[in-house]
Amino acid sequence: MTDSIGSGGLVCPVPMLETDRVQLGHGSGGKLAARLLKERFLPHFDNPILGQLGDAAVLTIGGAELAMSTDTFVVSPLEFPGGNIGSLAVHGTLNDLAMMGARPAFLSAGFVLEEGLPFDLLDRIIRSMAEAARAAGVPLVTGDTKVVERGKADRLFINTTGIGALIPGFRPSPERAAAGDVILASGPIGRHGMTIMSVREGLGLETELESDAATLFPLVELLRLAVGEVVHVLRDPTRGGVASALNEIAAASGIGFRLDETRLPVPPTVRSACEMLGLDPLYVANEGIFLAILPAGAADAALAAVRAHPLGAGATIIGHAVEVHPGMVTMKTFLGGTRVVDMLPGDQLPRIC
Amino acid sequence: MTDSIGSGGLVCPVPMLETDRVQLGHGSGGKLAARLLKERFLPHFDNPILGQLGDAAVLTIGGAELAMSTDTFVVSPLEFPGGNIGSLAVHGTLNDLAMMGARPAFLSAGFVLEEGLPFDLLDRIIRSMAEAARAAGVPLVTGDTKVVERGKADRLFINTTGIGALIPGFRPSPERAAAGDVILASGPIGRHGMTIMSVREGLGLETELESDAATLFPLVELLRLAVGEVVHVLRDPTRGGVASALNEIAAASGIGFRLDETRLPVPPTVRSACEMLGLDPLYVANEGIFLAILPAGAADAALAAVRAHPLGAGATIIGHAVEVHPGMVTMKTFLGGTRVVDMLPGDQLPRIC
Repeated sequence: MTDSIGSGGLVCPVPMLETDRVQLGHGSGGKLAARLLKERFLPHFDNPILGQLGDAAVLTIGGAELAMSTDTFVVSPLEFPGGNIGSLAVHGTLNDLAMMGARPAFLSAGFVLEEGLPFDLLDRIIRSMAEAARAAGVPLVTGDTKVVERGKADRLFINTTGIGALIPGFRPSPERAAAGDVILASGPIGRHGMTIMSVREGLGLETELESDAATLFPLVELLRLAVGEVVHVLRDPTRGGVASALNEIAAASGIGFRLDETRLPVPPTVRSACEMLGLDPLYVANEGIFLAILPAGAADAALAAVRAHPLGAGATIIGHAVEVHPGMVTMKTFLGGTRVVDMLPGDQLPRIC
Repeated sequence: MTDSIGSGGLVCPVPMLETDRVQLGHGSGGKLAARLLKERFLPHFDNPILGQLGDAAVLTIGGAELAMSTDTFVVSPLEFPGGNIGSLAVHGTLNDLAMMGARPAFLSAGFVLEEGLPFDLLDRIIRSMAEAARAAGVPLVTGDTKVVERGKADRLFINTTGIGALIPGFRPSPERAAAGDVILASGPIGRHGMTIMSVREGLGLETELESDAATLFPLVELLRLAVGEVVHVLRDPTRGGVASALNEIAAASGIGFRLDETRLPVPPTVRSACEMLGLDPLYVANEGIFLAILPAGAADAALAAVRAHPLGAGATIIGHAVEVHPGMVTMKTFLGGTRVVDMLPGDQLPRIC
């Protein structure tokens, strides 16, 4: 607590901009996180595969073309309506593989347990994790467990790493976004992030709001079978939400995007929760939807394919690629004006996944 | 601190045996850890690949035969003579692959950073990690970074997951240990663990004692080229040390082992540090040596091959397989007697890796 001043029973946080230390915003999906990666990690680890900076690495080993992805989950609270850290840890990593056009095949799991963690809580989490893996048809093949002293971790962190085989002829990639493309959202936005926030902030919306975190590969498979390789980009808009994901794709492809606010599928409960907390749903993390960027001519077939799956029933076109402001995301607002949808420096919502 | 009683400035820890919560010993290489795995994880995740319970999973994907291994590093302190958590996170996972007879090929890394972690410390760790990966010829191809609030993690945890291609015709495996085998240790025992303990306990041995953590694949490769598939078992005796590793191999193979205390390569500084702290070097974690179990007839060729590498200069035969006490490890002591070398319930040394 070096950044607080205590006086009797009162503790007042003193805002400080520390440039020589890690800040919470470095864990966001925003600009600080991008800088951390670019300035502290990439200069040391630079290699062509890491340099692709996709949701997963694409690599060749023993003659097989694979995707590999890793994610550590530190979500707080550990349990929430619609799931827990265990199911989330499976969905999150498998989805990263699916977004690269890979069929998820195997998972590893690394646990950090805080001394004193109740076994009944651990059991519930393990059970959900196993159910999620079984439902996805992806076995957990290797694991590791570490225990740290009380107060040295926040109860439980889980890393999952997945590998999957790339599907020949299907290679969605951010730089393939092109003029004439539309942006398809496979479902309503903001549900996962606002469920976590609602529990954390005690908004009392738990009966109405449930995380939609799910394995998206079956949905991707329907999309691929319907329209094939014209799927230019797939991205699950997790940390940093739809806004950050589109900004990253815009930067990678040199294409601009224009969203239509009247078409954004923001459920009323998500909108209310966002208004109560002063948050913008465009920056809220999702774990149960993807964005697909594909030619306008394939939009109807793509929508029909995605909507055929229960997870994709709410699929809709939320915007399109434009050439007038390359690398930039804008939005036509409810009132007919236009605003820039930039990346945030940090995050509205820490520890959402 | 629910298990402490405070009175004025004094805090007395109250020993409690909690059976419904995670204890530090569950993170050891001992019996508690084995029970945690068997009772809480395996019933849910059971599948043939995980059930092998090797240092790494062996799997087939896209026609390629691979090994996959994951490990989360929570070592405290983060930096120590001979390395830091970054280099250790590379060595540890690559060695698990090598012990399965795989050639390490790719690594992922997942970081949990505590808010307030100094960037200069992070930079040193990343640099060591990158150097270790480069030296091993294994690129880090994908990563993830999470940040948690101050007090919610102990500065930095790192998960690494590795994949490697299995080497045809070379499949060391614990159940292959057989009568007539000897136990080869590739170097002195206890150096990594006692270096960490020495720093933590302020023993002042830092100038004499340095962690030997290193990538062992080059050494394994020399051994394989010299004696080939007669290498029945390879195991790096990390958490729980040589004693726990041999007990696990004894249980898997149904063979007994007999160590010779006069032949144990325990460096004098390790022995002194162990005596100061009341520890047994047989249970101290290693990160820079392996045990190879192979027929006595191949021992000379194996020793010559391993000793040809600087990391293996201290290789020696420390014992042999016996049929008289299957599944059990014993040791002929300095005094000529025999004692049982069992697994510990918990661990002498928490957070050593």
